[in-house]
Amino acid sequence: MNKVAIGIDIGGSNIVYGFVDREGNCLEQGSWKTATFPDPKDLVAQVIKEIKPLYHSKNYHPIGIGIGAPNGNYYNGTIEFAPNLPWTGVVPLKELIEQAMGLQAVLTNDANAAALGEMTFGGAKTMNDFLVVTLGTGLGSGFVANGKLIYGHDGFAGELGHTIIDPIGRPCGCGRNGCLETYVSATGITKTAKELLKETEEPSILRSLSVALSSFEIAKAAESKDKLALKAFDITSKSLGLALANAVTITSPKAIFLFGGLANAGDLLFIPTTRYFNENLLTIYKNKIALLPSSIPDSEAAILGAAALAWTNLS
Amino acid sequence: MNKVAIGIDIGGSNIVYGFVDREGNCLEQGSWKTATFPDPKDLVAQVIKEIKPLYHSKNYHPIGIGIGAPNGNYYNGTIEFAPNLPWTGVVPLKELIEQAMGLQAVLTNDANAAALGEMTFGGAKTMNDFLVVTLGTGLGSGFVANGKLIYGHDGFAGELGHTIIDPIGRPCGCGRNGCLETYVSATGITKTAKELLKETEEPSILRSLSVALSSFEIAKAAESKDKLALKAFDITSKSLGLALANAVTITSPKAIFLFGGLANAGDLLFIPTTRYFNENLLTIYKNKIALLPSSIPDSEAAILGAAALAWTNLS
Repeated sequence: MNKVAIGIDIGGSNIVYGFVDREGNCLEQGSWKTATFPDPKDLVAQVIKEIKPLYHSKNYHPIGIGIGAPNGNYYNGTIEFAPNLPWTGVVPLKELIEQAMGLQAVLTNDANAAALGEMTFGGAKTMNDFLVVTLGTGLGSGFVANGKLIYGHDGFAGELGHTIIDPIGRPCGCGRNGCLETYVSATGITKTAKELLKETEEPSILRSLSVALSSFEIAKAAESKDKLALKAFDITSKSLGLALANAVTITSPKAIFLFGGLANAGDLLFIPTTRYFNENLLTIYKNKIALLPSSIPDSEAAILGAAALAWTNLS
Repeated sequence: MNKVAIGIDIGGSNIVYGFVDREGNCLEQGSWKTATFPDPKDLVAQVIKEIKPLYHSKNYHPIGIGIGAPNGNYYNGTIEFAPNLPWTGVVPLKELIEQAMGLQAVLTNDANAAALGEMTFGGAKTMNDFLVVTLGTGLGSGFVANGKLIYGHDGFAGELGHTIIDPIGRPCGCGRNGCLETYVSATGITKTAKELLKETEEPSILRSLSVALSSFEIAKAAESKDKLALKAFDITSKSLGLALANAVTITSPKAIFLFGGLANAGDLLFIPTTRYFNENLLTIYKNKIALLPSSIPDSEAAILGAAALAWTNLS
């Protein structure tokens, strides 16, 4: 009988799930569109209908369920006021899933789950102190110190994307101004490129784009040496490098893993960010801390992160 | 036979030591001028001469020695390139003291020791997640998460004073520009007041000061409602409030303890800092995190912090 953790990752567009063994092999996986569940109870019904028969039929022995979700609170097992989900208010998803499945569940936010995934199955297996930064629509983060994920006293630690880097800067979805994620994220670099297009005369293939400007298009242009696109990456990397250097003063990690859509730009992001990062580091940290891509493939990261949450808490 | 921890705190001006029982009672204490020990071996000789006979004569049973020191490295037991001490380079003080005393020793920086003191004997006894900020000549910090002090992978975590808040700001002793401690510390507020005196026409009792301008004089003037001095506190508190709000996004502490010379200004610092802090907090943290003075008296804090290091590591 194969022991597995069930990992469920809840995203704004898709919900993905999988059965993951202790070595990080994803034995089964599936996904649904988030929008098909206007009520969280609809999701719970689907989980019973689809996931339960699957592990019975395959003779998997589930140790429990890990759930990664935006605005997920580890201590309460709730999703709280997630702006990108169809569910409003406070959703006690851990409890709902536990009751429906007769299995223990554990829930945290998606970036924390990513950090646990990196620690359990990825490049941080031998590390006690590291952090994972997810660069998607927003900027998420999970900090590990002394071999433990930092949840904070209320379960809401690891919101590096909401450090204010310019108090009179860009408006943020959180209602404040100048949060790091308004500059450093897929959305942030797109805003930066739009500002450059507006404020400069620099010729750029981005000016005549027939599709909507996105971080993907900016990366494509930067790869073909488009100066304005490269400038957008440079500005983004400068903010990220300084913010990471500042974060290092608090937890002094062995490595920082960058993950998600914008991190997939590879050297375009890593080379300038590493330079700005080391320029801004206090001498005692300089050139000692690696900036690394996640070693978990994008396609499996969400499931492996959620499953790692179950493996680290319930096994 | 009384079990005690020997706490030794090494400061730029004074070295203090004491015998502290498990309840935090300081049973004996003494101090020496740091400058009288041009070589660390001179200090070790003094420790043998003065401390060893003392615990023999009093029938104390020492469990070990905790040492708080600027630039102290927990993992190596070394003091590394401390700019305010007479000793240059890397000093293996833990090893020297252990060999001389025949007792186990443990060493960390003074702000980390202060955090352990608060957790073991002070206001953070029931807390798993908090931070201590020491506001003296510089700004030190000790972060506790999941009930453990964060040392980082290299023993150098907790350097909040060296987060860069303005890349083109004031030069810092660390060789970079715009570090938090160049604004928020006894030295920082003095610089701010000097700038205000130079750049404005604001009448102030600080203009005719017969003694050197210091944070103590600024606090005294602010207490008597001197507008320029109050402005200096407001500017300092604004930087501190924002920096603490940003630090919260990483570890989400239950409370923040402010400690040291500048924190002794009390309401002058706490009231505006609390206001700016809450203004800058992400909604999920707002009005949930207490800014508190340390509950350990200044006169005993350094010894109790160093002793707490021994109690938490060696008992």
